Amino acid sequence: MSVLVVGTVAFDSIETPVGSVERVLGGSASYFALGASYFAPVRIVGVIGQDFPQDYLDLFTQRGVDIQGIKQERGDTFHWRGRYHEDINLRDTIELHLNVLAGFEPQLPDSYRDAEYVFLGNIDPVMQMEVLNQIRRMKLVVCDTMDHWIRESGAELRKVLQRIEMLVLNDSEARLLSGYNNIVQAARAILRMGPKMVLIKRGEYGVLQFSDSTVFATPAYPLEEVFDPTGAGDSFAGGFMGQLARSGDLSQGGLRRAIVYGSVVASFTVEDFGVKRLTDLSLPRIEERYQRFVQLTDFHS
Amino acid sequence: MSVLVVGTVAFDSIETPVGSVERVLGGSASYFALGASYFAPVRIVGVIGQDFPQDYLDLFTQRGVDIQGIKQERGDTFHWRGRYHEDINLRDTIELHLNVLAGFEPQLPDSYRDAEYVFLGNIDPVMQMEVLNQIRRMKLVVCDTMDHWIRESGAELRKVLQRIEMLVLNDSEARLLSGYNNIVQAARAILRMGPKMVLIKRGEYGVLQFSDSTVFATPAYPLEEVFDPTGAGDSFAGGFMGQLARSGDLSQGGLRRAIVYGSVVASFTVEDFGVKRLTDLSLPRIEERYQRFVQLTDFHS
Repeated sequence: MSVLVVGTVAFDSIETPVGSVERVLGGSASYFALGASYFAPVRIVGVIGQDFPQDYLDLFTQRGVDIQGIKQERGDTFHWRGRYHEDINLRDTIELHLNVLAGFEPQLPDSYRDAEYVFLGNIDPVMQMEVLNQIRRMKLVVCDTMDHWIRESGAELRKVLQRIEMLVLNDSEARLLSGYNNIVQAARAILRMGPKMVLIKRGEYGVLQFSDSTVFATPAYPLEEVFDPTGAGDSFAGGFMGQLARSGDLSQGGLRRAIVYGSVVASFTVEDFGVKRLTDLSLPRIEERYQRFVQLTDFHS
Repeated sequence: MSVLVVGTVAFDSIETPVGSVERVLGGSASYFALGASYFAPVRIVGVIGQDFPQDYLDLFTQRGVDIQGIKQERGDTFHWRGRYHEDINLRDTIELHLNVLAGFEPQLPDSYRDAEYVFLGNIDPVMQMEVLNQIRRMKLVVCDTMDHWIRESGAELRKVLQRIEMLVLNDSEARLLSGYNNIVQAARAILRMGPKMVLIKRGEYGVLQFSDSTVFATPAYPLEEVFDPTGAGDSFAGGFMGQLARSGDLSQGGLRRAIVYGSVVASFTVEDFGVKRLTDLSLPRIEERYQRFVQLTDFHS
């Protein structure tokens, strides 16, 4: 089964305590698509400007990502510039230029409309809804969001929440959306807004997943070197959805294993700048680290 | 096998967003001893003042804790007053009166000197060393510490680190002691200071355990209500050491299961103010939550 993602395709300029890069390939859809590409065919929906280099598009096609849904518009590509602190969990946005992303109206190629595994990356809930409205058959819709949309587009986001199976967000976004400080109470409140499942990303601390009747908690893969945390959450989602599409297993166990695959993909992502690490992986290397994750968390043997 | 703990026996005055208590039983040795008491016989070493009520001593003896090693001195008992923020992970110390704790010279009753499982609670490293020097047979020595001792008594702490098997501390203490921001690098640096194992407590995010050749990561038990986080770390250590003494299993698997037992005990502790929850538990209730922890983290079935 293939996976469809809508989100940003961007230039990222990133500064971390160990180095910096200028105008590298970034954006939620890019990280997601590359992360998912090791598991299943991926279709991407997004917008780029005239300044977007063919090399970056080639990165997608080399990984088997279908880029028919990437629209090129007059103007410049979305550009984000961020700086990470000495404590790599903290970052500041230095510049944000929406450019062609402002006013983007996602239009799905006809070949995309039978998508079954759909990821609504972190963009305007209005655009997320437009994508949903163009898809004929959906098996699993997972949605990401961020503080900006929770604050500025709450009503639109609530409508999206009623049409998805799972919301993915981080601790502070969950607190903001729900109004609860306690993360379990926050998750329960979000479940009451519509989604059957909530997945809370806690960065280097791992993931919590909630449904009405189940809770799953798992740590993150501990890393000795984190070069650049950018895209960790989106590539996590890519590994997660990719594994679900590969296995077709939407049981609680299947979802949990997919969460661990997502954590493994994210652990690779942060080992180098931008999407670099996501372009030279292989499924056997992912499987190898999955097995190390199993050993890392096992307390039965 | 019995467990020996040296640490503080105190009055705690605690304010959290949901309530407050005045001069309740507190201190690292108290939380440890009560937490461990469900698993193994416990011997406690500490000091109290003349103002310490018999009722609090009775709490220990009712739980089968041997209090021969608690010395009563002229003066007042150590008193800590703290206030937790709306974000319950943050707290301020409002008052700290060492009282009889200043100048305390631990003296072990003769019956304590064959202790095999020893926990050096968070007190002056000089006092920790005095205890070590009085014990004849040690199978496992685990030591806790805090930012104050790392800053003020670094040299003495380093000497203790060379005589213990495991250091237990939290994220920020590990960073301070090692000089590394990355938690894996911090743990590796601490291992080079002497202990064979380092256990890093991350509060609601769980625990990381490191040795030269192994890493174990486990989440915390997610709780819908946290009334009072005081003593979570010490009762974690109590459950951990208690389980080790009960099982006698110091294999990597045995250590990991003991970490999970510790997490379970800590999850009970924070459900009520002070040591209250630790006085009315039972081993079957602990075992029941241990099984829920197994389900919570399982991604194999």
